[in-house]
Amino acid sequence: MRIRLTPRETSFYDMFAASADNLVTGSKLLLELLGADVAARPELAERMRAAEHAGDDITHGIFHQLNSSFITPFDREDIYNLASSLDDVMDYMEEAVDLVVLYEIEALPKGVEQQIEVLARAAELTAAAMPGLRTMDNLAEYWIEVNRLENQADQIHRKLLAHLFGGSYEALEVLKLKQIVDVLEEAADAFEHVANTVETIAVKES
Amino acid sequence: MRIRLTPRETSFYDMFAASADNLVTGSKLLLELLGADVAARPELAERMRAAEHAGDDITHGIFHQLNSSFITPFDREDIYNLASSLDDVMDYMEEAVDLVVLYEIEALPKGVEQQIEVLARAAELTAAAMPGLRTMDNLAEYWIEVNRLENQADQIHRKLLAHLFGGSYEALEVLKLKQIVDVLEEAADAFEHVANTVETIAVKES
Amino acid sequence: MRIRLTPRETSFYDMFAASADNLVTGSKLLLELLGADVAARPELAERMRAAEHAGDDITHGIFHQLNSSFITPFDREDIYNLASSLDDVMDYMEEAVDLVVLYEIEALPKGVEQQIEVLARAAELTAAAMPGLRTMDNLAEYWIEVNRLENQADQIHRKLLAHLFGGSYEALEVLKLKQIVDVLEEAADAFEHVANTVETIAVKES
Repeated sequence: MRIRLTPRETSFYDMFAASADNLVTGSKLLLELLGADVAARPELAERMRAAEHAGDDITHGIFHQLNSSFITPFDREDIYNLASSLDDVMDYMEEAVDLVVLYEIEALPKGVEQQIEVLARAAELTAAAMPGLRTMDNLAEYWIEVNRLENQADQIHRKLLAHLFGGSYEALEVLKLKQIVDVLEEAADAFEHVANTVETIAVKES
Repeated sequence: MRIRLTPRETSFYDMFAASADNLVTGSKLLLELLGADVAARPELAERMRAAEHAGDDITHGIFHQLNSSFITPFDREDIYNLASSLDDVMDYMEEAVDLVVLYEIEALPKGVEQQIEVLARAAELTAAAMPGLRTMDNLAEYWIEVNRLENQADQIHRKLLAHLFGGSYEALEVLKLKQIVDVLEEAADAFEHVANTVETIAVKES
Repeated sequence: MRIRLTPRETSFYDMFAASADNLVTGSKLLLELLGADVAARPELAERMRAAEHAGDDITHGIFHQLNSSFITPFDREDIYNLASSLDDVMDYMEEAVDLVVLYEIEALPKGVEQQIEVLARAAELTAAAMPGLRTMDNLAEYWIEVNRLENQADQIHRKLLAHLFGGSYEALEVLKLKQIVDVLEEAADAFEHVANTVETIAVKES
């Protein structure tokens, strides 16, 4: 039997919630990117970088807590995996915005807005699910829906690549755009890893 | 000491065997793809999609069983990993066929048939090994051979890329074909993950 | 409480140290590659292949020991992960040299030498950290620094891709060079996985 909800443990829940909320912030910046003209992007990338650093601080806070806690609400390894996979999502989101600026992309191809909308939806679901870790209630709906969203992201990604390879772009432009849509697909995959880790935790607790 | 082979546990073995048998089905469809003309491919992709859905059902069956079992034949995490990595192989196989249709590939480059033959061999070995999980006998030969096959797949993949980059294809064609041979290489890697998970289970049991 | 430092366990430490030392050898061969003219490369690739085989032998030695040990100094899974991730680094290093020869690359793009210098630094730090596994002292500095190096490698990699996509290379040349700089980036990621595994072990022991 585990001792639960001592003050020390509570903060893991708070930190996971903060990390997931930060992904909502990140996905809103991605949505802003869609409407931003080229001149406005560097400032947007700066804000994304700040969000990524804020995420790093939360992740390190979780690792520090893990180091100094005798009792943890879940297996140490699962806490580590959950914190890492939440962190991965933010890393990919930040990379996508950075690459758009670095490669001086003029226009993003049709389909990227669908990728980003799926990420925004996954971020909201993830943020909404984190409080459920305390009670382990209603988590199955969350991970099933995120898995469904990842399948959808995968279909969007495949069609985007077919569009990029279709002959209306120059080869170097294809390479740049492919790098960006691949990174956004990795963000969707990382959301699925978060959901899978939550499922692992829930399976052990059930 | 663990209690083994109660009816409930038995079905994990059956489901792993079913999941691996499904990979044999998938690899046979890949072999069919090699000989299929362009017009026959969409129907082949449809059958592959059906196999992938059948695989999903088996995977979810394993997860459901995991949720509702008090006693499991191996660590919960290893059951989860084994089911997931078997599922990954099928996802990559299905993706390869889907991309061939989606990108309207005329002819697959020389070397793809070698990639697929390695996958077919790995599928057979994996299906043959699954019953060994009950007794943990003769599994080392299986995972050593799959690791060897993955090395072979890696060499084939490297040479295929050198061929694609060699100047006889247009850049966009290279990008499409590279995506497909990369996905087939990921299927070979995923077979290795399955073998590594079986090794992890066997090491714990030994 | 764990029983420590029996002769049998000691050899795990020795084998991890040998595996990490081998990465120093590999990174020195990468540094040599930078200065080697085209004619000298095949012989260099041969030495890299020998180092990779030596690494495989060490890795299999660890797995064999794991199979035959009743008591292990860390969780079996962490030993497995640490050995595997050290092995991954060498695989990527070897692949990079092999691809340079296979694709008959004339000149490596500016920035690759920075990638390789980061790998050489990470290899040294990793080799220096392995003896710390016995006492679990001073490991935090190691993994923090390797994480910092991986961030640096990531920045170098992104700028390298922007350079490759910038228009001064032909599309096929971009594809070849991208494959090589991507593999070097994967080596940097794999060093981070090693560091993360060490952190996981240290967190459990603390």
